[in-house]
Amino acid sequence: MLLCDIGNTSYHFLDGELSFKKSVASFNPLKMKEKIYYISVNKKVNSELAGLVNWINLAAYIDMSHYYDTMGIDRIVACEMVKNGVIIDAGSAITVDVVKNGHFEGGFIYPGVVAMQKSYENISPALAYSFNFDLALDIMPKNSQDAISYGYLKTLYSEVMSHKMPIILTGGDAKLFKKIFKDAKVDEELIFKGMKKIIQKADIC
Amino acid sequence: MLLCDIGNTSYHFLDGELSFKKSVASFNPLKMKEKIYYISVNKKVNSELAGLVNWINLAAYIDMSHYYDTMGIDRIVACEMVKNGVIIDAGSAITVDVVKNGHFEGGFIYPGVVAMQKSYENISPALAYSFNFDLALDIMPKNSQDAISYGYLKTLYSEVMSHKMPIILTGGDAKLFKKIFKDAKVDEELIFKGMKKIIQKADIC
Repeated sequence: MLLCDIGNTSYHFLDGELSFKKSVASFNPLKMKEKIYYISVNKKVNSELAGLVNWINLAAYIDMSHYYDTMGIDRIVACEMVKNGVIIDAGSAITVDVVKNGHFEGGFIYPGVVAMQKSYENISPALAYSFNFDLALDIMPKNSQDAISYGYLKTLYSEVMSHKMPIILTGGDAKLFKKIFKDAKVDEELIFKGMKKIIQKADIC
Repeated sequence: MLLCDIGNTSYHFLDGELSFKKSVASFNPLKMKEKIYYISVNKKVNSELAGLVNWINLAAYIDMSHYYDTMGIDRIVACEMVKNGVIIDAGSAITVDVVKNGHFEGGFIYPGVVAMQKSYENISPALAYSFNFDLALDIMPKNSQDAISYGYLKTLYSEVMSHKMPIILTGGDAKLFKKIFKDAKVDEELIFKGMKKIIQKADIC
C-alpha cells in the first residue's frame, strides 16, 4: 500500500516501511501508475490529482463536521489519532492543535523554522541568525542569537505549555522541537498512521 | 532641539511637539544643516552619519555596561526610562525587554506585523491573511484567519504575561498591540523621552 501526505513543499510517500520525499516543484504525479492513497493541503496539487483515478483522496472518507472548512487535512488526520493532547506538526508551517476527550478544541498556525528565519532576516541583516535550539528557556537572553531564538521558541513554548496537556510532536522538524518540548512524545508517522486508520475504517483497501 | 530615532525602515524625527518620519531608502541626511541628536540601529545609516558633525550620536553618552554589545540602542534608551516593567517596542521588529529594579534582565526579538504576515504568506497562499487584533485570546481558533492571528499574537501574549510585570508599549504599532495587551501603558514617546534624559544627564545641549 502506497501512502502520500502532500504539503506545501513536498510529496511525502510511505511505501511499507520506506518513507521518501519528492519536491512539489519538480515531481510529476502522472508518472505514478500504482494506486496511491493521499491527503493534500496543496491546492495546486489537489487540482492536478483530481482527474487521476489511481490517486485516492482520503479526505472523502473523513467526517469533517468536527473541524472547520479551511483546516488543513493533515491536521484533521492527526487529530483523528489523538484522544487527549496538543499535537505539534512542525513542517514548513507549524500547526498546533488541541484535542480533549477525542474532540477537536481548536488550533493555531505558527511559521516553520525556515519561514521564521527569513522573517527576521528580512527585517534587518543584523537579525540574520540561525535559531539556537539549545537555548535556556528560563533565562531572558542577553545576546542577539538567543534574543531571536527566544522570540521564536519561547513564545511558542509558553503558549503550548499553558494548555497543561500531553504533547505529541510530528512533522519533519519533530526531533528538532523535541529539544524545546523535552517531555513531548515524538511520532513522525502520526499522519501515516491516521491515514491507515481511515483506510481501514472506510474498508477501501 | 531636533531628535531622531533611526530604525530599519525610517528616520523618526521629533521637533518640539512635531513628530514626523522619513524613509531610510530615500532620505538624504546631508540635507539637514541643524544640530540633530540621534540614535540608530541601522548600520548603513550609522556609517553615513559618522562623518557629519551636526549629527550627534547619543550612544556615546550611555553607560553600556549593563547591556550587551549587539543590543539595539533604541532598546537600551527605552530600558533607561523604566524602573520595573516589560517594554514592548512594536515596529518592523518587536523587541521585548524586561527591567527589574532599574536593572536590564534581558529581552527578546519577535517579528513585526508586516514581517510576520509575509512569513505566513510565503509558506502558502492559503495562509495569506491579515491579523485579527480583536481575536479572543482565551478561545482556541476554528478558522484560518484566527489560527494565524493566534499563532502570532497569543504566543507573544502568553510569554509576555508570564513575567507578571507592568507592560509599557511603544513604537509605531503600540496602539494596535494595546488591543492585545489591554492593561499596558502606551507611551509612544518613550524613546524620545529617553533621549532627552540622556542629553540632560550628559549636559550636552
